[in-house]
Amino acid sequence: IVSEFVSAERVHGTLTFVLLGASGDLAKKKIYPVLWALFKQQLIPEATTLVGYARTALSHQQLIDQIKPFLKVKPAEEAVFARFAANQRYVAGTYDQLDSFKSLNDFLSEQEAASAPAGSRVQSNRVFYLALPPTVFVPVTHNIRAACMSSTGWNRLIVEKPFGRDSDSCAKLNEHLASLFNEQELYRIDHYLGKEMIQNMLILRFGNRFLAPLWNRENIASIQITFKEPFGTQGRGGYFDGFGIIRDVMQNHLVQMLCMVAMERPATIDADDIRQEKVKVLRAIKPLTLDDVLLGQYVASNIPGNEESKLGYTDDPTVPKGSKCPTFAMAVVRIENERWAGVPFILRCGKALDERKAEIRVQFADVSGSLFAGAPRNELVIRVQPDEAVYMKCITKKPGISFETYQTDLDLSYKSKYGNLDLPDAYERLILDVFNGQQHHFVRDDELTEAWRIFTPILHEIDAGHKEPIPYAFGSRGPEQATQWAKELGYVYQPYDWKNSAVAKTTSSL
Amino acid sequence: IVSEFVSAERVHGTLTFVLLGASGDLAKKKIYPVLWALFKQQLIPEATTLVGYARTALSHQQLIDQIKPFLKVKPAEEAVFARFAANQRYVAGTYDQLDSFKSLNDFLSEQEAASAPAGSRVQSNRVFYLALPPTVFVPVTHNIRAACMSSTGWNRLIVEKPFGRDSDSCAKLNEHLASLFNEQELYRIDHYLGKEMIQNMLILRFGNRFLAPLWNRENIASIQITFKEPFGTQGRGGYFDGFGIIRDVMQNHLVQMLCMVAMERPATIDADDIRQEKVKVLRAIKPLTLDDVLLGQYVASNIPGNEESKLGYTDDPTVPKGSKCPTFAMAVVRIENERWAGVPFILRCGKALDERKAEIRVQFADVSGSLFAGAPRNELVIRVQPDEAVYMKCITKKPGISFETYQTDLDLSYKSKYGNLDLPDAYERLILDVFNGQQHHFVRDDELTEAWRIFTPILHEIDAGHKEPIPYAFGSRGPEQATQWAKELGYVYQPYDWKNSAVAKTTSSL
Amino acid sequence: IVSEFVSAERVHGTLTFVLLGASGDLAKKKIYPVLWALFKQQLIPEATTLVGYARTALSHQQLIDQIKPFLKVKPAEEAVFARFAANQRYVAGTYDQLDSFKSLNDFLSEQEAASAPAGSRVQSNRVFYLALPPTVFVPVTHNIRAACMSSTGWNRLIVEKPFGRDSDSCAKLNEHLASLFNEQELYRIDHYLGKEMIQNMLILRFGNRFLAPLWNRENIASIQITFKEPFGTQGRGGYFDGFGIIRDVMQNHLVQMLCMVAMERPATIDADDIRQEKVKVLRAIKPLTLDDVLLGQYVASNIPGNEESKLGYTDDPTVPKGSKCPTFAMAVVRIENERWAGVPFILRCGKALDERKAEIRVQFADVSGSLFAGAPRNELVIRVQPDEAVYMKCITKKPGISFETYQTDLDLSYKSKYGNLDLPDAYERLILDVFNGQQHHFVRDDELTEAWRIFTPILHEIDAGHKEPIPYAFGSRGPEQATQWAKELGYVYQPYDWKNSAVAKTTSSL
Amino acid sequence: IVSEFVSAERVHGTLTFVLLGASGDLAKKKIYPVLWALFKQQLIPEATTLVGYARTALSHQQLIDQIKPFLKVKPAEEAVFARFAANQRYVAGTYDQLDSFKSLNDFLSEQEAASAPAGSRVQSNRVFYLALPPTVFVPVTHNIRAACMSSTGWNRLIVEKPFGRDSDSCAKLNEHLASLFNEQELYRIDHYLGKEMIQNMLILRFGNRFLAPLWNRENIASIQITFKEPFGTQGRGGYFDGFGIIRDVMQNHLVQMLCMVAMERPATIDADDIRQEKVKVLRAIKPLTLDDVLLGQYVASNIPGNEESKLGYTDDPTVPKGSKCPTFAMAVVRIENERWAGVPFILRCGKALDERKAEIRVQFADVSGSLFAGAPRNELVIRVQPDEAVYMKCITKKPGISFETYQTDLDLSYKSKYGNLDLPDAYERLILDVFNGQQHHFVRDDELTEAWRIFTPILHEIDAGHKEPIPYAFGSRGPEQATQWAKELGYVYQPYDWKNSAVAKTTSSL
Repeated sequence: IVSEFVSAERVHGTLTFVLLGASGDLAKKKIYPVLWALFKQQLIPEATTLVGYARTALSHQQLIDQIKPFLKVKPAEEAVFARFAANQRYVAGTYDQLDSFKSLNDFLSEQEAASAPAGSRVQSNRVFYLALPPTVFVPVTHNIRAACMSSTGWNRLIVEKPFGRDSDSCAKLNEHLASLFNEQELYRIDHYLGKEMIQNMLILRFGNRFLAPLWNRENIASIQITFKEPFGTQGRGGYFDGFGIIRDVMQNHLVQMLCMVAMERPATIDADDIRQEKVKVLRAIKPLTLDDVLLGQYVASNIPGNEESKLGYTDDPTVPKGSKCPTFAMAVVRIENERWAGVPFILRCGKALDERKAEIRVQFADVSGSLFAGAPRNELVIRVQPDEAVYMKCITKKPGISFETYQTDLDLSYKSKYGNLDLPDAYERLILDVFNGQQHHFVRDDELTEAWRIFTPILHEIDAGHKEPIPYAFGSRGPEQATQWAKELGYVYQPYDWKNSAVAKTTSSL
Repeated sequence: IVSEFVSAERVHGTLTFVLLGASGDLAKKKIYPVLWALFKQQLIPEATTLVGYARTALSHQQLIDQIKPFLKVKPAEEAVFARFAANQRYVAGTYDQLDSFKSLNDFLSEQEAASAPAGSRVQSNRVFYLALPPTVFVPVTHNIRAACMSSTGWNRLIVEKPFGRDSDSCAKLNEHLASLFNEQELYRIDHYLGKEMIQNMLILRFGNRFLAPLWNRENIASIQITFKEPFGTQGRGGYFDGFGIIRDVMQNHLVQMLCMVAMERPATIDADDIRQEKVKVLRAIKPLTLDDVLLGQYVASNIPGNEESKLGYTDDPTVPKGSKCPTFAMAVVRIENERWAGVPFILRCGKALDERKAEIRVQFADVSGSLFAGAPRNELVIRVQPDEAVYMKCITKKPGISFETYQTDLDLSYKSKYGNLDLPDAYERLILDVFNGQQHHFVRDDELTEAWRIFTPILHEIDAGHKEPIPYAFGSRGPEQATQWAKELGYVYQPYDWKNSAVAKTTSSL
Repeated sequence: IVSEFVSAERVHGTLTFVLLGASGDLAKKKIYPVLWALFKQQLIPEATTLVGYARTALSHQQLIDQIKPFLKVKPAEEAVFARFAANQRYVAGTYDQLDSFKSLNDFLSEQEAASAPAGSRVQSNRVFYLALPPTVFVPVTHNIRAACMSSTGWNRLIVEKPFGRDSDSCAKLNEHLASLFNEQELYRIDHYLGKEMIQNMLILRFGNRFLAPLWNRENIASIQITFKEPFGTQGRGGYFDGFGIIRDVMQNHLVQMLCMVAMERPATIDADDIRQEKVKVLRAIKPLTLDDVLLGQYVASNIPGNEESKLGYTDDPTVPKGSKCPTFAMAVVRIENERWAGVPFILRCGKALDERKAEIRVQFADVSGSLFAGAPRNELVIRVQPDEAVYMKCITKKPGISFETYQTDLDLSYKSKYGNLDLPDAYERLILDVFNGQQHHFVRDDELTEAWRIFTPILHEIDAGHKEPIPYAFGSRGPEQATQWAKELGYVYQPYDWKNSAVAKTTSSL
Repeated sequence: IVSEFVSAERVHGTLTFVLLGASGDLAKKKIYPVLWALFKQQLIPEATTLVGYARTALSHQQLIDQIKPFLKVKPAEEAVFARFAANQRYVAGTYDQLDSFKSLNDFLSEQEAASAPAGSRVQSNRVFYLALPPTVFVPVTHNIRAACMSSTGWNRLIVEKPFGRDSDSCAKLNEHLASLFNEQELYRIDHYLGKEMIQNMLILRFGNRFLAPLWNRENIASIQITFKEPFGTQGRGGYFDGFGIIRDVMQNHLVQMLCMVAMERPATIDADDIRQEKVKVLRAIKPLTLDDVLLGQYVASNIPGNEESKLGYTDDPTVPKGSKCPTFAMAVVRIENERWAGVPFILRCGKALDERKAEIRVQFADVSGSLFAGAPRNELVIRVQPDEAVYMKCITKKPGISFETYQTDLDLSYKSKYGNLDLPDAYERLILDVFNGQQHHFVRDDELTEAWRIFTPILHEIDAGHKEPIPYAFGSRGPEQATQWAKELGYVYQPYDWKNSAVAKTTSSL
């Protein structure tokens, strides 16, 4: 039914993918490998031309040498790789000179003309991926607009975060882009939207009759969205200090997850109907105040075998002394609409914690007037990473002669169900979407506006040092006060008998 | 919270279990083994006196010799068995002579006096298990009432089906028992009420917030309750012919399952509050007509290696020629209340089918105005036997790059979750309940009245030969027309990808 | 559809109504007038024999003279009255001598024989109305059972409160009656069950699609059931002091109203299905504690023109000095089931208040996540007396140019809708029900048991003087603390613009 | 809470209302009277300058003489009128010459300068009302944009229908306007959005807890939106023939009503949040096919005293012979979303019918598994005109001794509740909204796009003569087939006892 959602669009004409910043880390470690994966799975047309662009001059061979180490080409794939390599081009140029882009355009036009069937009037389609630092963002977009737009086919621009650092800077960025491109040409990446379980949300929520009628304040007591990393700033604390965990993770990734969990049913599954609903959820949220957040900052804990744990956040020499920059944050978001009034959405993210995990916990309310007082609660857990899973903690009779209630789970662990399924990387999905012209999983300008509206007031307060972060040990579960606060918000921590659970093998407690 | 539900009642005084019909098949194959299981697990008091009663004269040793082969005593258990054997008594007597029962009473009183602490005024409690043919039921109950009731403790009477064969005979039986005992003394056994998953229903339905609000006509499209046996009448067709599959299975076991699935929330978990709700469901059902049922009768199919399959039902020489007795039946029951109006309850049972299975299938409605047209439906399956399981067929995104809907399952298979759990036998639970004075899982007189009210009209019609059974092959899934009818009733048969399902290992398709 | 519910039963045979206590106040002021009303409207058979029985000897004419003043016979009705008078009989006798009842029986049998068609074997049906003080209740019922039962037709016994004064006395009474009659012969009157709006509850609640799905904890914030009288004990304080307002009004009338408001949908509209549901609601209520009630006692206030208001309750010389007997009570009842968990049921009753009124107020919850913050709440009001009405306070746009929310009402005032409708008296309905054998609006034994279970603990505490009543002025709205407590329980008092309301003409504020 | 919704905006600077087409019918009969009403109620600033513009040259006095007859100035209002007249200006000019508009602009600027406080830099705000035929629409808007925009304050443009006649023409119009103005400057009038009861919908639906949870497919069986006129084309059939009833009434007014009835709760009550939801509803509707509509055309019926009824539609000499233009249409619209899937929305409109009425009928489903089989249904009726009312048909016990169900109504008739309330005219509200800058009740471009998407296919078919209209008599209720079809769609016509209904006085049956 929704196969057209991702089906390969028939490309009428030539197709060129221009990677600006081709020699940078993102390009090498992420984008080229993704292009390789798409190519070898034949998810993109064989004839797609891939053009790297950066300041450094590189020969074709130098380019190949630079990217190949990151592609993990298997011996059996060498022939395919040879074809992939043959599709690579490279153009060196500046980011701020219009002439460089005119040259780039000339090059692209030549290539397009060359690959078009003789005598035909070709339609040339171009994707621009901006794997660039924010500093060159404005001139590059100007120059693309001025010099590099295909006039015969479509143009698509893939943009990476940061999308501003508060409402004002975001507004400026949005206006800048709107003055150059229309919204249908812009693909803003939040790679969480490319994750299997986040893409699954739409179907889980709106495709299951046993979930749709329950998804509201009447049945759900609280929703937690959690992101945990087991490592600290890894020596880049100085850079991180300019952002903090809220800008780094919460305001974008967690907010996107929140939207997918909380939004109303869209009119259709068209991209703009979905994005409209994401905006609508955000519009029902008031700007946060400092009372709605709890901040943490990790300190050294000296875990055996973990070198990084010997340093607290401010022990990093690149971090300003006495920095109050949060490396952990918990926020309580209230959505003032008919569906969610009264239900706390607890967003939680942090570095230097006990594990790597991203998950969504939907805890149901107690059964009203329960026959079984004190019985535990249902909880639907959607584990985003690692080890994708959906499971519902449910209550049964304790198996055997007794008649006690017992919490167990209805389980769908991808690993135990599907074995070693090779789920595609988030970027792989998203770049394929761009080829297909699918904007569903990209962020629209008004989503950014609304998200920044909610967070800007507290970010300014935090930037001004008005909120003290609570210290927590590297490798811990974060400040104990966060757990305490979650309880006060009605979340019930439930001891759980994991030993009989398939889920157990890959998870730990919250 | 509900631990008192089965907790061992403190027995004030002596406890005697009198098994009438001690030399019969039921006693030997079922009741003695159950008593042994309860004894060795110390679920009943060590000092319980177990008195067999039958017409044949037997010495203590003869009794032990007769029952021991069925107990499967392991070598390590011999010492325990010796104590169990020491508790056995045997009294021979008639079923229709009051004198025999006076003697029995004298014997019981002696035993009770002997086991009571010296000098104390003992309270004597007695359980009578009537493992007897219907023919002697009336005199035996008369005689127990007249001669064998303890006047110092409680008396409990366990009664086996059949509880009549239609409304009139049931009413007579109820009146007879009511004239002798009060309802609190009567324990009518339907052993399906002793099964793990049926006992689980109450907690599943009323203990899970994610199920309770969905359990109604708005969300559920149909409910199927199925009972299948892979063998025929096994040479006892003559006996079976007097009943037919509706009396044998549907009117009792399936109706009890229906009540557990469909009843309203009881006021409390007291036995009479629960039984009241079972009666209430039945009261909302109109008597069935012949249009509400489909009958089948198996014919020979000659399955390799299956000797019985060479004979159709009427090929059994003990079956009257041309018998129209159904060995398969499907009935559609309508519950006319706010919760269930419009939802078909499809009861289906049969002999000589393709497998052994008892299960409940709750199929949800399509998502209304679904974004994903044609997506499959949710279905909650509760497998009663074999291999207890609860699983919810649910819809997810097909794992991987595509965005199609995909049916998988949230699974709780007892075997894969709990390993080789040794679930207690239904009789074991039920007899323990009698010791504990728990009537929850026993059938009250008005339940019988209502169940017969529903089935009597069609039974009389069928007895009169007014409905032709459809022939079906031994070992098949029953008449094809039954499947067709289920589809017309809105049940959607869904092809299901079992290979990735833990559930798959133990189940087959419907 | 439910016309058979009250349609006149075909009486096979003779029909006799025996009124025991025929010379008492209840008989003269209530029962004879009701019989007259039924007779003249031809709701009971013309040939019904009406037999008065009391200790005083009375001639037929004396009886007629005694009752006629209360019948308000209009001139045009004299001919009908003559026929009514001709049907009257009178028998004098004791209440405690069996011989008196044997004589009564002989008299009844004679009458029945006389009125039966010649030669036919008549079926004689008898109604006994016990308009008697509790003191003679036991001997009279014994004697009726022993001497006066018709053996050819049915016998029905109408019994008036009090039905005990606590759990123990009620249990004794129930056992006494159960030993003499079966429940189908007993008609216990709570005349609130005969009121138009209480009888309406069943249809309002279960016949309206726009109410049924709302009738639960999700949508309703609180329910108040109020009974107010504008007069005090009127010189009979000594008698009242033995009961108090809880036994007088709350434990019976308000509890019956509560049952009708809160019960689950019955399986059918058969009397026992309905009464079963009333019992079920009560079973979900825990016994009250002193913290669940607030008591009041009125003091003098000297309202101009109101002589009684000059005396407080304890100023009545028949009341014991320092009596703590409550003349006002408010209780908060919690129903622990799926429908009502968390919703306070506020019962409130009192004497010497500002007005006469009985009503039920169902206040809805705020709209969740309302677009119109601070908008008033919906409230469904069912006014039982005086001036029957149903109205829903609802929110509209303020009519005119503005876009403010405005509380108005959807109104069904019987007076403005139907004009001066002559609604039948509660007793009239109930006695007609007895003739028809309809037990729907009579109280079953287990209802009493459960109602007393809830109130007995606090009644014993109050009897023992453990709860101080709060003084309130005669003619006031009761203790201010009651209003305060209702607010704390979540009831929102809403200023209401009555001037445009049809409802307004007959009502005052809560 | 929502008082700012209509509160008078503080106008910073001068305010000028320019009425283009000042000598036309719309201006004289509608716009000038509305301006007068606003002026005399002081809802617009005293100092507002009102400038008429048209081709005819008129002196100030001629203008006043032309408009005054339509204002119904009462004697007591003459002084106020004098002030109103003093505010009038008039400029004559062409519609297609830029120079005319330059002159107009010069005039406006002069006036603004004159009315500004000396020495201050004034902010000039201008409203342009285009009371013009479609033929001059394009040049006029061009010229306003080119010559008449205030550069110091805001400019607002009020536009009247038609907004195209199908998808293509609408798209052209939208693009034209979008190239000249931004959406915040455009106020497209559908005067139904100015009606009291349509404005009430938002509060009724989202402000009442007793309605919000019922407003869906589970509880509502069908919704009818009806518009009836008792007169025919009144001699302008030739003009009407170019449109037909669908373009004239259904595609705009009825669709706007549909949106208000069916839309989801908006995120806030901001204009664009509301309009977004209206678009969302329309997006869930598939384009209609000819099977979804039924057409009618009136024929002569010769009603005594009704001269027009002597002529059928095609009897009008200005109507082409054999015209198939519909004067009556019924359409069934399906909204494919979670709330409305399966609920038919029945739109019905016609000329030459039995009465004048616009109303919305929300018929509830039967109570599921009703205790009272055959009882009538609830129906919420919102009468838009004439005689505004909201009433809920509900079911009660028939008052009196019987226990039958009875349909009555909970009633809010504005006339009986509020007396002769002088509700403002739709235009009055809407023009005031323009002064206030409130766009809530104006139609956004994408609403038009979606509405035309739904109707264009059938309009083209009808234009091509592919659907035969059914003849119906002038003054009848339209084709009988429409009633029949409504029944097939599940609408239950219910005989209703009007004599006791306050509603009855002003209404007739559907």
